[in-house]
Parts: sequence; C-alpha cells; structure tokens
Amino acid sequence: MKRIAIDMDDVLAKTTHVIIDRINALVGKEFTYDELMTGTDAYKQEFYNDYLQNNSFLWEPGFFLDIPVNEDAIEVVKRLSEKYEIFIVSAATEFPNSLKEKLTWMEKYFPFITWKHIVFCGHKHMIQADYLIDDHEKNLHTFTGTPLLFTAPHNLHISDFKRVNNWKEIEKLLLN
Amino acid sequence: MKRIAIDMDDVLAKTTHVIIDRINALVGKEFTYDELMTGTDAYKQEFYNDYLQNNSFLWEPGFFLDIPVNEDAIEVVKRLSEKYEIFIVSAATEFPNSLKEKLTWMEKYFPFITWKHIVFCGHKHMIQADYLIDDHEKNLHTFTGTPLLFTAPHNLHISDFKRVNNWKEIEKLLLN
Repeated sequence: MKRIAIDMDDVLAKTTHVIIDRINALVGKEFTYDELMTGTDAYKQEFYNDYLQNNSFLWEPGFFLDIPVNEDAIEVVKRLSEKYEIFIVSAATEFPNSLKEKLTWMEKYFPFITWKHIVFCGHKHMIQADYLIDDHEKNLHTFTGTPLLFTAPHNLHISDFKRVNNWKEIEKLLLN
Repeated sequence: MKRIAIDMDDVLAKTTHVIIDRINALVGKEFTYDELMTGTDAYKQEFYNDYLQNNSFLWEPGFFLDIPVNEDAIEVVKRLSEKYEIFIVSAATEFPNSLKEKLTWMEKYFPFITWKHIVFCGHKHMIQADYLIDDHEKNLHTFTGTPLLFTAPHNLHISDFKRVNNWKEIEKLLLN
C-alpha cells in the first residue's frame, strides 16, 4: 500500500484565511484571500510585512483550534485512506500550544485518522512516503518521494513541483 | 551526515522508574526497577497487570514533565550531535497532554536539540534514518535502517536486535 504524507496548515486547514482575519484586526486593514492570490506583488509584500511583525498569535493557546477545514478535504482524504496509507505530517513543534489543539482538530474533522497516523515535527526530510502534499517548497525540496505543491498565496511563484490547486484535483490525480 | 533517530521514554528519560513509583503509590506495593530487571516472570507479570489496570496517569497533565534524564544521555547525545544528524522521535500522539511537556523537557535537558529535530508520532515506520535507538520492538521491527534495542525491563526477552544497555555503550558503538 502506497503512503501519502499530508500537511495540515493551508492543505487540510484554511490557516491563511484565519491569519488574514487576525492581521486585519491587528493592523486595521482589509486584506482578502482572493486579493492575495491575484493581487500585485506590492499588495502581497505589504501583507507579509504586516504578518511577520504581528504573528505572535500563532504561539497563543487556541489559535489552531478554530480553523475551518478546506473544501472537499474530508471527503477526498476519506477516499484516499481506503487506497493509501495516510500520515498527517504537520511542522508544528515550533508552536507548543498547537500540538494538543491539532489533535483535537483532527479528531473533529478527520476522526477516521487516529493518533497513530499523526506526526508533529520541525523538519520533514526524515519522512518516508510515496507522496507529500504540502504548501511549502522547503518541505518538498528534500522529500524523497513524489512532491505535490498545494496552492497557497505564498507559493504561486514556485514552478519546481507538480501543483495541485484543490482537493478535487488531488482526487483526480491519485484516485482515478 | 548519517542520521540517528532517538526515542524519549526509557531511552532518554527514566520513564519506567517514575511509573513504578506511581503504581506503588496507587496499589500499595513496593515494586523496584532492579527487581523488574532481575526478578521472576511472576513478579514482572504482577507489576504489568497492576500497571495496565492503573495507568490513566499517563494521560494526565504533568506526568511527562518531571521524569529524570537517563545516566550519560545528555553528554553522549551532545557528542553524537557533533557527528550525526539527531532526531528525537517519540510515540507521543496517544498522550495529547504530553506533547507540550515533552518539548519543555527537551529544552531543559537537551537545549542543543531544537524543535526542528523533535518528532511526535504514533507509528514510527515512516521515519527514515540510519539508526533508531528504541526500547520497543514494534518500532524496531519496521525500521529500514539499523535498529538498536535500548534495554528496559519490558524487552529483556527480545533477541532480534543489537542491544545497547546504556548510553556509554551507545557512545562506544557509534563514536569510537
């Protein structure tokens, strides 16, 4: 049975959407996800500057509990889990408070994936799998299997990997 | 640079020692680590029966914070980290409260290993490394590198793996 490693933030979970809301509230602006995807470099630069200066909420208790699940993620991961061995692999040890919250979140949305198949780490390069679905090039560059780049505003400029834009595309790629 | 994956409980940390104290307090007996290592099968059976019926403290907040570090572990891991890439790999996602506590514990005793090289998981068979030092045969059986069995009372009957009895032996094996 082939193994798929799946990232959480911005792959299973709409983390950037929540981050945008928090940044807007902190700096009094009106950034939107759609404009981050389609806007000018200057727009993105302004957002990421504000983000880097105001992201201490990532370390606060509660942040990772209330993130919406990505469209079609539950259904497609469920179908994938019937054909593949699924590991959820989240680079989360930087955020000590997130760990228990991420387990709770997984139990809420993906109860068919137990703690036995959830991995929290820093670096991901010691993960052995056939596929890694991730939004960060740093994780994909060192991966020894087939990397799949899940589209997010911060990776639109990357062209080194096979790109998947949403869970329906993953379904088509890995289940048909 | 070769990579070593190192388990926490009963390898870096004297977890069974603390478990024995907790069980003794709960059932009013006087089990000792030395007798678990050298005693009769009946003695061990009695302990593990009591343990399996009274181990809910493993899920309680605080348990994993106050575990003594194993003899020579700090010095040897420090020396190993100069020659090998070290990952700490703990099967901890079964115990949601342990995760943050294990990060705190690592920072206290092994500050030279950062969150980037700490992994919390359930199964360990997707970990890619040259060596895995672990006290549980279930983790070593599926490992694709060289497994090293760290001696603990519950694994004295296992003869399938190269055994290491303490950190001095690991130093001799991997650094000389």
